[in-house]
Amino acid sequence: MIRVGVIGYGYWGPNLLRNLVKTRDCRAMAVADLNPEKQLAVKRLYPFLDSVASPSQLLEDAEIDAVVIATPISTHYELAKEALRCGKHVLIEKPMTVTVAQANELIQLAELKQKVLMVDHTFIYTGAVRKIKEIIESGELGDVYFYDSVRVNLGLFQPDFNVLWDLAPHDFSIMAYLIDKEPISVSAVGAAPVRWNGWKKESVVYIAVEFADGSLAHFHVNWLSPVKVRRTLISGSQKMIAYDHLDKDYQVKVFDKGVQASNDADRYQALVQYRMGDMLVPKIDQTEALESLCEDFVRCAQTGKRPLTDGYNGLRVVQLLEAAQRSLEQRKEVMLSGTGESVILPRNGISDDGQLQVTQTLL
Amino acid sequence: MIRVGVIGYGYWGPNLLRNLVKTRDCRAMAVADLNPEKQLAVKRLYPFLDSVASPSQLLEDAEIDAVVIATPISTHYELAKEALRCGKHVLIEKPMTVTVAQANELIQLAELKQKVLMVDHTFIYTGAVRKIKEIIESGELGDVYFYDSVRVNLGLFQPDFNVLWDLAPHDFSIMAYLIDKEPISVSAVGAAPVRWNGWKKESVVYIAVEFADGSLAHFHVNWLSPVKVRRTLISGSQKMIAYDHLDKDYQVKVFDKGVQASNDADRYQALVQYRMGDMLVPKIDQTEALESLCEDFVRCAQTGKRPLTDGYNGLRVVQLLEAAQRSLEQRKEVMLSGTGESVILPRNGISDDGQLQVTQTLL
Amino acid sequence: MIRVGVIGYGYWGPNLLRNLVKTRDCRAMAVADLNPEKQLAVKRLYPFLDSVASPSQLLEDAEIDAVVIATPISTHYELAKEALRCGKHVLIEKPMTVTVAQANELIQLAELKQKVLMVDHTFIYTGAVRKIKEIIESGELGDVYFYDSVRVNLGLFQPDFNVLWDLAPHDFSIMAYLIDKEPISVSAVGAAPVRWNGWKKESVVYIAVEFADGSLAHFHVNWLSPVKVRRTLISGSQKMIAYDHLDKDYQVKVFDKGVQASNDADRYQALVQYRMGDMLVPKIDQTEALESLCEDFVRCAQTGKRPLTDGYNGLRVVQLLEAAQRSLEQRKEVMLSGTGESVILPRNGISDDGQLQVTQTLL
Amino acid sequence: MIRVGVIGYGYWGPNLLRNLVKTRDCRAMAVADLNPEKQLAVKRLYPFLDSVASPSQLLEDAEIDAVVIATPISTHYELAKEALRCGKHVLIEKPMTVTVAQANELIQLAELKQKVLMVDHTFIYTGAVRKIKEIIESGELGDVYFYDSVRVNLGLFQPDFNVLWDLAPHDFSIMAYLIDKEPISVSAVGAAPVRWNGWKKESVVYIAVEFADGSLAHFHVNWLSPVKVRRTLISGSQKMIAYDHLDKDYQVKVFDKGVQASNDADRYQALVQYRMGDMLVPKIDQTEALESLCEDFVRCAQTGKRPLTDGYNGLRVVQLLEAAQRSLEQRKEVMLSGTGESVILPRNGISDDGQLQVTQTLL
Repeated sequence: MIRVGVIGYGYWGPNLLRNLVKTRDCRAMAVADLNPEKQLAVKRLYPFLDSVASPSQLLEDAEIDAVVIATPISTHYELAKEALRCGKHVLIEKPMTVTVAQANELIQLAELKQKVLMVDHTFIYTGAVRKIKEIIESGELGDVYFYDSVRVNLGLFQPDFNVLWDLAPHDFSIMAYLIDKEPISVSAVGAAPVRWNGWKKESVVYIAVEFADGSLAHFHVNWLSPVKVRRTLISGSQKMIAYDHLDKDYQVKVFDKGVQASNDADRYQALVQYRMGDMLVPKIDQTEALESLCEDFVRCAQTGKRPLTDGYNGLRVVQLLEAAQRSLEQRKEVMLSGTGESVILPRNGISDDGQLQVTQTLL
Repeated sequence: MIRVGVIGYGYWGPNLLRNLVKTRDCRAMAVADLNPEKQLAVKRLYPFLDSVASPSQLLEDAEIDAVVIATPISTHYELAKEALRCGKHVLIEKPMTVTVAQANELIQLAELKQKVLMVDHTFIYTGAVRKIKEIIESGELGDVYFYDSVRVNLGLFQPDFNVLWDLAPHDFSIMAYLIDKEPISVSAVGAAPVRWNGWKKESVVYIAVEFADGSLAHFHVNWLSPVKVRRTLISGSQKMIAYDHLDKDYQVKVFDKGVQASNDADRYQALVQYRMGDMLVPKIDQTEALESLCEDFVRCAQTGKRPLTDGYNGLRVVQLLEAAQRSLEQRKEVMLSGTGESVILPRNGISDDGQLQVTQTLL
Repeated sequence: MIRVGVIGYGYWGPNLLRNLVKTRDCRAMAVADLNPEKQLAVKRLYPFLDSVASPSQLLEDAEIDAVVIATPISTHYELAKEALRCGKHVLIEKPMTVTVAQANELIQLAELKQKVLMVDHTFIYTGAVRKIKEIIESGELGDVYFYDSVRVNLGLFQPDFNVLWDLAPHDFSIMAYLIDKEPISVSAVGAAPVRWNGWKKESVVYIAVEFADGSLAHFHVNWLSPVKVRRTLISGSQKMIAYDHLDKDYQVKVFDKGVQASNDADRYQALVQYRMGDMLVPKIDQTEALESLCEDFVRCAQTGKRPLTDGYNGLRVVQLLEAAQRSLEQRKEVMLSGTGESVILPRNGISDDGQLQVTQTLL
Repeated sequence: MIRVGVIGYGYWGPNLLRNLVKTRDCRAMAVADLNPEKQLAVKRLYPFLDSVASPSQLLEDAEIDAVVIATPISTHYELAKEALRCGKHVLIEKPMTVTVAQANELIQLAELKQKVLMVDHTFIYTGAVRKIKEIIESGELGDVYFYDSVRVNLGLFQPDFNVLWDLAPHDFSIMAYLIDKEPISVSAVGAAPVRWNGWKKESVVYIAVEFADGSLAHFHVNWLSPVKVRRTLISGSQKMIAYDHLDKDYQVKVFDKGVQASNDADRYQALVQYRMGDMLVPKIDQTEALESLCEDFVRCAQTGKRPLTDGYNGLRVVQLLEAAQRSLEQRKEVMLSGTGESVILPRNGISDDGQLQVTQTLL
C-alpha cells in the first residue's frame, strides 16, 4: 500500500486526486493547498482526507510514502527536491521544471534516494499513443521521414507562461516517447497578438526540432484558433500514421503507403512513386489515461521499476521547452548538443504484447 | 478580340488552352512546344490551331496579341522578357520568375510597353478566396492575429525544385492577396528525407513570415503526407475564418468568435475571455477559377486594366520564395526590408458587391 | 423546497439522482430499489439519503412531495398511478407507459389531483432541440416537407422490449415537440436477425408517420449498426435543417435553401429549381439537458405550471409506439384517427427569447 | 471490332458516347436523336460520326452491331425489342423497362437472338461496389443482418417519374448484385410535398424489401435533402461494412465487429455482446465505372459472355421498382412470390482474384 499526499488542488489536482482515490494499492492521505476554499472543497468531497495549508506538513509526515505535486510550474523544482530529500516518491505535474539544470538535479537526487521520479505526461498513457508506439517499434513504418503535430484551440491564457509552456509539453512528451532519435537543434517562431496591461506573451508558437539524421519534427501550438485541432502525422518510408485525438472512432489511422524512387530520368515523369495500399484503424484501448498513469506510479513506487514518463522523459520535454523559449527570444536556431547528452540514456518501451512495461530497475 | 499563343504544352498548358479556347473575345492561335509528341497532341484536339516547335514563331507573329507561358520555371524570365519586347501581353505560369530582380525587370518592362503582365495564381480567382477577401475587406475580422496555411499530400516530386517552389506559390499568392500587411522577415526550416542518385531536395518545408506589427503568417508545404490537406486559418480579434479547399460543401467557415481581455487579476482566472457566437458558411461562387482568370487576362488586354494577379502580386510571391529559400540554406531568419519596397505599391481589391474589380489603369 | 424520492436505481436512476441532488429548491430524500446491492451503492455515494427496498415506503411518506420513477417500463403505470393517488408529483422515465389507455388515465388522474405529471424525454431539454424549435416556430422553414431521423449504433439489447421501445421514444418525443402537425397513420417494418433461446425481438425498425397534409416523418432505429449515427433532417420550402447530435461543434445546420417550381415545360429542363444561400450553425446552449429537466420538474411542482415534456408529450410518444408496434405485428399501416384526439389538445412552446416557458397552468 | 450506334443524346447519352469513343475494339458509328440541336452537338464534337434523327436508321443499318439506348424510360422497351429483332446487341440506360413483363420479354428475345442484353447500372462497375462484393463473397461478414441505403440530395425533379424511378434503380441494382438472397415482399411509403400545375409525384420515398429469411433491406431516396448523402450499411454477424460513395479517401470501411449472444440471464445484463476489433479501409480501384462498363459490353458482344449487369440484374431492379410503385399506390405490402421466379436464375459473380468475371456463356 502506497500512502499518497497531494500538493496543490487547483486546476489539475482534483483530477489526480479523483483517480488516486480509486487506485489499487494506493491510499490517499492528505491534500495541501494554501487557499482555504480549496481546503474546504477537499473536505466536502473527501471527508476522510486531511486537508492542510502547508506542503511541509505532508513532506514531514512519515506516514506518507509519495507526493503528487500539482502546483504552478515555478514551484515544481523546490517542492520536488524537498520531497525527494524527505524520502518520498514524487509525481510532478507537467512540465517537470523550468530548466534543464533543475531537471537533472531532481533525476540525480531521485537516483541517490532510490525513489520514483515521475512526470504527469498523461498522453503517454492513452491507448492511442501506446498503440502508435507499438507500431513504430515493430518497424512497420520504415524510416521516419517527419513528425508533424498541431494542437490548437481557443485556449486558456496563462498569466506566467506563454502557449509554448502550456501546450507543447504534451506534444514534446509524446514525440520524445515515440521517436527514438536525439534532437540536435530547435527553432521556434511565435507571435503575441493579444496584449494588455503590460501582459505580452506568445499565444501562437511554431517549433521545429531537427534530428541528427536531418529529419524534422514540427509543432504548432496556439491559443487563438477558432477550431480545435489535435492532429499528428508521422510519415515513414513504408507506412504513415495520422493520429487525431478528437476523432474518437478513428483515432489512429495507419496508411499502407510508401515512397519509391523512380529510375526514370524523364523530367516530365514522376521522380518518386507511391505505393498505395489499405488503411487500418486499429482498435484502441479506451481506459482513462490518468487512471493508468496513477496505477503505474503506485506500481513503480512498490517495485522500484521506472514509469513510462520518468525523470528522463520529463527532462527531454524541459530541454525542448527551454531551447524553444531561447530560440523565440534570440530569434535563431538553438543547438542542443552537449546539453543533456550525459543524462539522456535510458529509454522506456512497450512490450511485444502491447502491455505497458518498464525496461530498467532502479533499486 | 485578343489573339493568343501558348508556349509550353506540358502539365498545365493543356488546362490553360482548354479554357482559352472557350474564353469570350479571345482567339487561340498557336501553340509552341519543343516536344513533337506534344505538337501532335495539340493538332489532334485542336486541328484549327498552329502547332510549332519554337516560341519565337509565336513571339514574332504580328497576328498574335498575347502569349501564355507555361514552360519550366527557369525559362519564365527570358520568355516573358522577349514577349514583352515583342509587344505581347503576357500571362506567366506560377511562380513568375526565380528572382526578385527578374520580376522587377519584367514589371518595369511591362509598364514601359504598356502591356498586361499577369501571373497564373489560379487560387485568387476561386470563389472561396474572393469571398474571404470580401469578408476581410469589410473589417469584420477586426485585427488579424495570425494566418496559418497547410498544403500537404503525397506530391509529385520535381527534378529542379523543392516542395517550397512547387506548393508555396499557391499559399503565398493567396496570403499576399488577402492580408494587407507588408512582411518584414522570413524563416524557413525543411527536411529532405527522400534522396537518390544525388538528388536531394526538401520535400517538407515550414515557412514563417513576420509582419511589421509582429503578427505571423505560417505555411506548411509537404510532399510526404498520407492525407491530403488544404486548410487555412485566419484569426482576428472579432471573427475567425477556417478555409478548407477540399470540403466542397463548407469551404469557408466564418466563426463569430472574438477575444476579450479580462480585468480580473486572479491568477486562477482566465486572463482572456472569448465571445462565442454563430458560425456561418457563406455561399461560394463555383465558377471554375481558371476560366475566370483567362477572362480577366483577356479583359485586361482589351482595356488596359490590371488583373488581380498582376506583376506585383507575382513579385510578392517570388520575394517570399527567394527569401524562404535563402533562409533554408542559411538556417536563419532573412529580413525583407528594402528588397522590394519601391515597387510594392499598388494593391488590387474587390469591390463592395463582391465583383472582381481592378483599382488602377495602366494606359 | 420540493422533497423528492427516486424509485429504481438501475441504469438511468443514478443519473437522475446525481442531478436532483444539485437542483435548486430540491431536496433528495430517499431511494427505493429492490436490489440490496443498489441500496448499498446509494448509501456509499449519498450517506445522507434513505435507501429502502419498497417503493411504498416512499409513496406513503408524507415528507416526500414528488417521486421520480426509473423502473422497467412495464411497472411505470402502476407506480405512477399509486404515486399520483398519494398526492405526489411524478416524473417518469421514458416511455411513459405501455399503452395509450394507461397514459390517458395518468393524465386525467394528474389533472384531478392537480399534480405535475412529467416524462423524462431528456432530448427536449437539450440546447440543440430547443434552438430548432425556435427556428421552426419563427416560420423561417416555410412548409415542412419531411422529417427524417436516424438513431443507430451497436446497442444494448433489452430482454423485454425491441429496439422500437428502446430508441424511438427519443425521436418520437423530439418530433412531437418540433412538428406541430397531428399524425394520422403509422407504418413500421422491422427485422429480428439476432435470436437465441427463444428470444426474438426486432433490432432494426423503420417507422413512417404520415400527417394529415400528406407529409411524412420517418425514423430508423437500429441496434446493429457498426457506426453510431444520430442525425435528423427537417426540410422546408424555405429553409432546411440538419441536426447531428454527435457533431458537437456543428450540431445544428440551417441551410438557406429553398424550392421553387419552374414554369418551363421543356421535359429536359428542371421542373423545380433551388435557391441556394448561406448555411448557418447557430450557437447552442451547452447546459446539460438532464439538469434543465430536473429544474423544470421542481419549478413546475412549485408553481403548478406545465413542463415541456408533460403527460401530453409523453402520451403522443406512447401513441406512436403502440401504433408502430401494432403495425410491425400486423404488417400493415395503422390509422391513428380517433385514438387520442380528445386528449391531445395543449401544446407547449418556447418563448420568443428562447427561454423555456410553459403555455398553461394546471392549478 | 464492335460497331455501335447510340440512340438518345440527352442527359446521359453524351457520357456513354464519350466512353464508347475511347473503348478498345469498339467503333462508334452513329447517333440518333429527334432534336436537331442535339444532332448538331454531336457533329461539333465528333465530326466523324453520323448524326441522324430516327432510331430506325441505326437499327436497319447492317454495319451496326450494337446499340446503346439512352432515351426516356417509357421508350426503352419498344426500342430494345426492335433492336434485338434487328440482331443488335443492346445496352439500355437504367431502369431497363417499366414493367417486369417487358423485361422478361426482352430477356427471352435476347436469348433467342443470342445477343447481349445489358443494362447501364453503372455503380456495379465501380471499384467500391466490386470490392464489397469480393468481401461478401469471401464469407467474412457472416450472416447478413440488414442492408440500409440512403441516397438523398437536392435532386432534379423528373416530369414523368417520381424519385423512386430516378434514384432507386442505383440502389436496387447494387443490392441485387451484392446480396444473394431473393426478396419476397416490398413495402414503400412516400410523400409528394412539392406540387404545381397538376404535377404531383413523390419526391421522398422509403422502401423496405424483405427476404425469405426475415432479414431486411431498406432504401431512402429523396430529392429534397439539403445535404447530399450516399451511404450504405451492410451489417453481418461477423463483420460490418459502411460504404460512403462521397468520401473518396475512405469509401469502404470494414468493421471487425461481431455480435455474440450472452448466456447471462440477469435482466440488467447485456443480452448481446459485441466483439470490437480493427477497422479496415481497403484500397479501391479508381477506374471510371462507365469506362469499365463500356468495355464489358464490347467484350461480351465479342465473346458471348454475360455482363455483370445483364438482363437478369436489370429485371430484378424493375421487379423491385414495379412492386414499390404498387405498394406506394395501394398503401400496403406487395408480395413478390411467383412474379419473376422462373427467370431469376443465373447470378453473376466476381472471381477470387477480384477481377470482373462472368459466370455463364450465352452462345
